[in-house]
Amino acid sequence: MNKRLVFSFLGNIAYLEAGLLVFPIIVGLIYRESLASLSAYVWVQAILILLGFALRKLSPDQAIYTFVDGLAITSLAWLFLSFFGGLPLYISGQIPSLVDAVFEMASGFTTTGASILINVEALSQSALFWRSFSHLVGGMGLLVFAFAFVPQKGQGTVNIMRAEVPGPKFGKLVAKNENYAFMLYKIYLIMTAVLVLILMLTGMSLFDSLIYAFGAAGTGGFANKAESVAYFHNPAAEYVLSIAMILFGFNFNLYYFMMLGRIKDIFENEELRLFLLIIGLAIIGIMISLSGSYDSLEVLFRDTLFTVSTIISTTGYATVDFALWPLFTHVILLILMFSGGMAGSTAGGLKVSRLLIYGKTIIRELRLNLQPRRVLPITIDGEILAESYVKQTFFYFGLYGLIFIIGVLVVSVSQGPFLTAFSAVSATLNNIGPGMGVVGPTGSYAGFTVISKIVLTFLMIIGRLEIYPVLILFNYKVWAKG
Amino acid sequence: MNKRLVFSFLGNIAYLEAGLLVFPIIVGLIYRESLASLSAYVWVQAILILLGFALRKLSPDQAIYTFVDGLAITSLAWLFLSFFGGLPLYISGQIPSLVDAVFEMASGFTTTGASILINVEALSQSALFWRSFSHLVGGMGLLVFAFAFVPQKGQGTVNIMRAEVPGPKFGKLVAKNENYAFMLYKIYLIMTAVLVLILMLTGMSLFDSLIYAFGAAGTGGFANKAESVAYFHNPAAEYVLSIAMILFGFNFNLYYFMMLGRIKDIFENEELRLFLLIIGLAIIGIMISLSGSYDSLEVLFRDTLFTVSTIISTTGYATVDFALWPLFTHVILLILMFSGGMAGSTAGGLKVSRLLIYGKTIIRELRLNLQPRRVLPITIDGEILAESYVKQTFFYFGLYGLIFIIGVLVVSVSQGPFLTAFSAVSATLNNIGPGMGVVGPTGSYAGFTVISKIVLTFLMIIGRLEIYPVLILFNYKVWAKG
Repeated sequence: MNKRLVFSFLGNIAYLEAGLLVFPIIVGLIYRESLASLSAYVWVQAILILLGFALRKLSPDQAIYTFVDGLAITSLAWLFLSFFGGLPLYISGQIPSLVDAVFEMASGFTTTGASILINVEALSQSALFWRSFSHLVGGMGLLVFAFAFVPQKGQGTVNIMRAEVPGPKFGKLVAKNENYAFMLYKIYLIMTAVLVLILMLTGMSLFDSLIYAFGAAGTGGFANKAESVAYFHNPAAEYVLSIAMILFGFNFNLYYFMMLGRIKDIFENEELRLFLLIIGLAIIGIMISLSGSYDSLEVLFRDTLFTVSTIISTTGYATVDFALWPLFTHVILLILMFSGGMAGSTAGGLKVSRLLIYGKTIIRELRLNLQPRRVLPITIDGEILAESYVKQTFFYFGLYGLIFIIGVLVVSVSQGPFLTAFSAVSATLNNIGPGMGVVGPTGSYAGFTVISKIVLTFLMIIGRLEIYPVLILFNYKVWAKG
Repeated sequence: MNKRLVFSFLGNIAYLEAGLLVFPIIVGLIYRESLASLSAYVWVQAILILLGFALRKLSPDQAIYTFVDGLAITSLAWLFLSFFGGLPLYISGQIPSLVDAVFEMASGFTTTGASILINVEALSQSALFWRSFSHLVGGMGLLVFAFAFVPQKGQGTVNIMRAEVPGPKFGKLVAKNENYAFMLYKIYLIMTAVLVLILMLTGMSLFDSLIYAFGAAGTGGFANKAESVAYFHNPAAEYVLSIAMILFGFNFNLYYFMMLGRIKDIFENEELRLFLLIIGLAIIGIMISLSGSYDSLEVLFRDTLFTVSTIISTTGYATVDFALWPLFTHVILLILMFSGGMAGSTAGGLKVSRLLIYGKTIIRELRLNLQPRRVLPITIDGEILAESYVKQTFFYFGLYGLIFIIGVLVVSVSQGPFLTAFSAVSATLNNIGPGMGVVGPTGSYAGFTVISKIVLTFLMIIGRLEIYPVLILFNYKVWAKG
């Protein structure tokens, strides 16, 4: 990779983060936090501006971003933002351990929502805002954000933005250029604003509405209450958030189709159908399993809808401690964790489009097993899918599985029982947040060892960026060249 | 499929099983069991002979076995043997439930070694022998056995035998014809006989030596003592069995190479190297994890070697209750469960050769990610591997994963905690036997529901036959034709 070019780009990221830190300072001023505590944000802003200035000096005369440069910029940018995002929380003493602070902000930017805090309500309002604001920023991608606010010159910038959009890229739903990406970003921000208003209509305060709208929009899941959404005892808000989390798990291109009036394309979208089918089956399965322990069918439905929505969208909010539910529901939730939302959404997981390719391939291969000489192309939304996508999907599953196993192996050294270790890795790699057992919705990652926390931090970024951008950082050849 | 042809072939299997039942009768006579109790075997023999006569009447004039016929014969034969193998244990009252009796014998023939017995020592000597004898019969495949003893006419018989040999078939290690398969079978029987003699030299009785030699040779794991191998307090026998289980996890073609003096081919075999590497790494990892809880390094090494050997070979014997070990060792053992032995061995699991293809593909694809235009063929043992094997391997993993998830989903309805449900499915699908938690080496599958037992019985046969032969039975088109 072109190291000068890559590091000079990180200068832009430094400027961007310095700008983002203005928002928690404003919140802190509104809530009259002491200037001493707010100075931590200002100190980090100063560091970022100096660092940004120095890094941008590295910029070569000609800026041509290659594919590898794009991958490296993406992963380094996310690591950079997480580290300097955690720094003010560490300096101000809000989170006394640097590893914990970086874990918390990596969890924020990757919209995971896993927390090392034992008592979230002890945090200052500005810190709570900063955590949740990182969901909004990370949800649709940092680099699109960077391009929107810090205009770039140079060729091949599409190589940078492409690495950040989740899911395989095929069919009609592909972002063609930067302007298109900015438009999707606008839709995202408008939807978030609408969600804030609706949450306020259900009786939540502006601050709470912002916190939970950011968490739902980015499918992150940070709350400002230890009990998460359950704190509010607000059924209307629970339904609103359930629907919102599912809607933010949709491919954002579908909203663009809606604007263009291409309603038929939306109804015929096979990924959307499969997503809704999985949600429906999971709700039925869990409601049957829990039917004996609820008196009210409405409450049973609401709790189930919210939990299915929060897990499959990889948000991680909770209205009920599902860690206490029976094992059968846990297995369903673990499956939803790996499914995740649609490609091109803010959700994590393997993505429904990959499951669609997987399922269609399984059926095709079983038919070929009986009639080996037939040619059976796979079609999605009426278009033939290139075989290279089939190969990539199965390979992605294979690589994902390998990283998952390594994660469980490392965490299991110091953390049991099996369900906790297994679901902690699932919940971070898939960017969900809470898992089962010790890391259930009322639990925390506080008790994990430093090594586990560092590994889980990497898993969050690996999951968010879909492996490759992070993996190339471990290839010495990438560093040797240029 | 040609139903007349397939069912007429099952007539041979009926004759074969009637013949095999002579052995437990002899054992029962030697141990002077009551004629009333032995009559159960004779009754089943009579049923099998009548059934065999009737089924063979169906035989069409021309016998041409297609690929699908071969798959159907294989899976139906294994279901048939398991059912009629369990029948005498049910009729004699040794196992009071028919589902349990069929589970036990499916576990025997598939060399899984999972048991529904709470007190194995209450069984008669003839029943103990029959259970363990089924490991010997199933280890190298039932149909090779059937061909050896009930000669067949007709074309395409290779289609029948091929479905039974585990692992992908590529490279130099491929059985070319029936005679070659018989020769491998002879090597298998001779190695078993040698193992019986060595076990007797360590001080075990003839009967015990037969039981544990059958279990190690077939990599099954049925014991005649509740404590399994731990009962004997015989370090020499433990070392002998450890080595034996690993040797029976080798590809049997390697022994043929040895006979031909092609020692170089053995040392250069990449699958063998990877198998030994995994064993070595697992031993080191577990020894480090357990080092604090052992006083004697020799005992630590012996227990670790035995446990690694019994799990990776998918045998399932125990000299120590590894269910009490720390979680880190459990995760290592779960990984070994899925690895299994080499292709063309008697072991279960995914097979080391598939892991070899998987690992080489991962490395290749990561290199291609940086240099997309390069052509990088995968070579194994110095020969280029056709890309179709890569595709098949990843597809096999995908299908295996799907079946595994469905299995965990069904078992989790009635059986927790997560480690028990997860490892019960791992231990049956991979043909190991004991898992962790409730189904650990000192536990049993007795408490599982009938539905779970039936599903696990199918998983054992699905695992042994590597999915496809069983799957086609669920395709109505296969039944509609012919």
